[in-house]
Amino acid sequence: MTTSSNGDQEITTKRSAGGGGGGVILGLDGGTTSTVCVCVSASLLSSSSLCHRQIPILSRAIAGCTNHNSVGETAARETLEKVMAEALSKADSNRSDVQAVCLSVSGINHPSDQQRVLEWLRDLFPSHVKLFVENDSVAALASGTMGKLHGCVLIAGTGSIAYGFAEDGREARAAGAGPVLGDWGSGYGIGAQALTAVMRAHDGRGPQTALTNSILNMLGLSSPDELIGWTYADPSWARIAALVPIVVSCAEDGDELASKILRDAVQELADSVKAVVQRLGLCGEDGQALFPLVMVGGVLKANKSWDIGKEVVDCISKVYSGVHPIHPEVEPAVGAAMVAWTRYVKASQCDDGS
Amino acid sequence: MTTSSNGDQEITTKRSAGGGGGGVILGLDGGTTSTVCVCVSASLLSSSSLCHRQIPILSRAIAGCTNHNSVGETAARETLEKVMAEALSKADSNRSDVQAVCLSVSGINHPSDQQRVLEWLRDLFPSHVKLFVENDSVAALASGTMGKLHGCVLIAGTGSIAYGFAEDGREARAAGAGPVLGDWGSGYGIGAQALTAVMRAHDGRGPQTALTNSILNMLGLSSPDELIGWTYADPSWARIAALVPIVVSCAEDGDELASKILRDAVQELADSVKAVVQRLGLCGEDGQALFPLVMVGGVLKANKSWDIGKEVVDCISKVYSGVHPIHPEVEPAVGAAMVAWTRYVKASQCDDGS
Repeated sequence: MTTSSNGDQEITTKRSAGGGGGGVILGLDGGTTSTVCVCVSASLLSSSSLCHRQIPILSRAIAGCTNHNSVGETAARETLEKVMAEALSKADSNRSDVQAVCLSVSGINHPSDQQRVLEWLRDLFPSHVKLFVENDSVAALASGTMGKLHGCVLIAGTGSIAYGFAEDGREARAAGAGPVLGDWGSGYGIGAQALTAVMRAHDGRGPQTALTNSILNMLGLSSPDELIGWTYADPSWARIAALVPIVVSCAEDGDELASKILRDAVQELADSVKAVVQRLGLCGEDGQALFPLVMVGGVLKANKSWDIGKEVVDCISKVYSGVHPIHPEVEPAVGAAMVAWTRYVKASQCDDGS
Repeated sequence: MTTSSNGDQEITTKRSAGGGGGGVILGLDGGTTSTVCVCVSASLLSSSSLCHRQIPILSRAIAGCTNHNSVGETAARETLEKVMAEALSKADSNRSDVQAVCLSVSGINHPSDQQRVLEWLRDLFPSHVKLFVENDSVAALASGTMGKLHGCVLIAGTGSIAYGFAEDGREARAAGAGPVLGDWGSGYGIGAQALTAVMRAHDGRGPQTALTNSILNMLGLSSPDELIGWTYADPSWARIAALVPIVVSCAEDGDELASKILRDAVQELADSVKAVVQRLGLCGEDGQALFPLVMVGGVLKANKSWDIGKEVVDCISKVYSGVHPIHPEVEPAVGAAMVAWTRYVKASQCDDGS
């Protein structure tokens, strides 16, 4: 057995085939930029081990985007297959060892999306394997609550979404509809607003901003006119979202337009969470009940002085004082594995009992 | 010779090869949705004939989008070649009859764009043919000023742009940077805002709106969740812009959100024109000089009671009372032909004089 470190999280790599004989579980987190797959030992997981330091992670693999809305169905499917094969190979396992898979991926917005992706997985695994397909926010929530689906998660990376579960299993979401449909709190939304501010300053519709020089320098362009060609040369949302650190940096240096873009994003993100909390009644009858808010994604990470995540929590707590922010110590793919394991155990118990 | 009618405009179809022996001129207007090519007789055009009813149009052909930012370079080039071949064939002409071509197409935002598209054309025609490549707003302006490049044009179709020329030849533009870079006054912008309003009403972030039922009915969808799949199934900007009539209709029926979306679009469009007028000094030193504002595109066409074009002019005239709106009687492709002809004659005179 070897132990390696992956950021905050320890990966315990077991070199026994098939996860110690009891099979393995795959947890996948497919965001708008990349897809992570972890392989955990099914036999070594137990409810008492759901503390993040004891999760028996055998391996981890990473690949590109698997949101079919963003990269198309063929590419999404190929990437998915590849990342699972790599994770299994690194764990000295193969498909026949797999007991359950939870794929939590962005772009799952409707039962028909879920059904289609389930069929992709069904083609790859024998019929006894338990398969679960969810929106990527489910894994993110579970990563902060150690597998329990209760509370709200706010993801703000390239895309943004708020997703929640009530104790009785009801679900609600807000935003998460991608850039065309107004996810202005996302990294993409912040980047696109920054580019727009540069264009407006350039053609005289808007005030001058430090964003102009900062963005042109970063992209190696000499004039805002060239931004048009740059923007449409590649439809990937992630490269627009990659401008967020520049916007934060300009805001920290006092640029008024950059600050306004971030304040607007904070408002959008807080509105998404408030809509979910309201619909599910997570705040209780008096509006003051405690509820977990799992915070995930690069946009919510703390910066030098402009901390978007902190501002979002402050904004929510003015209305719902019981908000309890959680910054997960494991990554969403591990959350997906915990969801798969919980449901697998439950389904096995049902099978045994019937 | 036969005469047929095309909307407001008469097309005089001459069946003599090569436009009466003096060759032909091609004018092309490439918008974000379609491309129109007209073939006019070079010998029958004269400065005295620049009244729209006497323009010797031999033929007209129409094809898909030729904006390389929207459909990619290969598709744009193929469509361009096809639409010119069709116009020439309909005029009983061929490439060897062509004296000059003006291609005025959206997506030309930088000298490097212009150079690339010029090279496509250069591959198709002998070296003596005069070739001109411009942003699509140049043809639109010329269609309202009978070929004279002075004043401002506002285009609001699928995309939007304000473009102007001063008497001394200086040019300026505002907006026209596509949907990612904040063209919120465009048909695409209006459509995307309407879709966003539906999503916000659905997930509890925003108020209810009549847009929800109207849009779902038009698209044959049963729930706003299905809008996400619909939106990203096809990256074409035109299908989002096709929602504009629904937004206008809801606004006319009193829906507050639809009205707000249109009011915001009016402000965006007026701001674009004002920026161009200001930079070029089209309003004169006292700010009250007369200047033409050519208005082109489906968004600016009059509706039952909510007239976006009229509202834009009202908004501009509060600042620049000399604004003189022109709704062209010929289409932009004819404007492109007039630009090609004017420059061709000028170049020929220079050649003769040297």
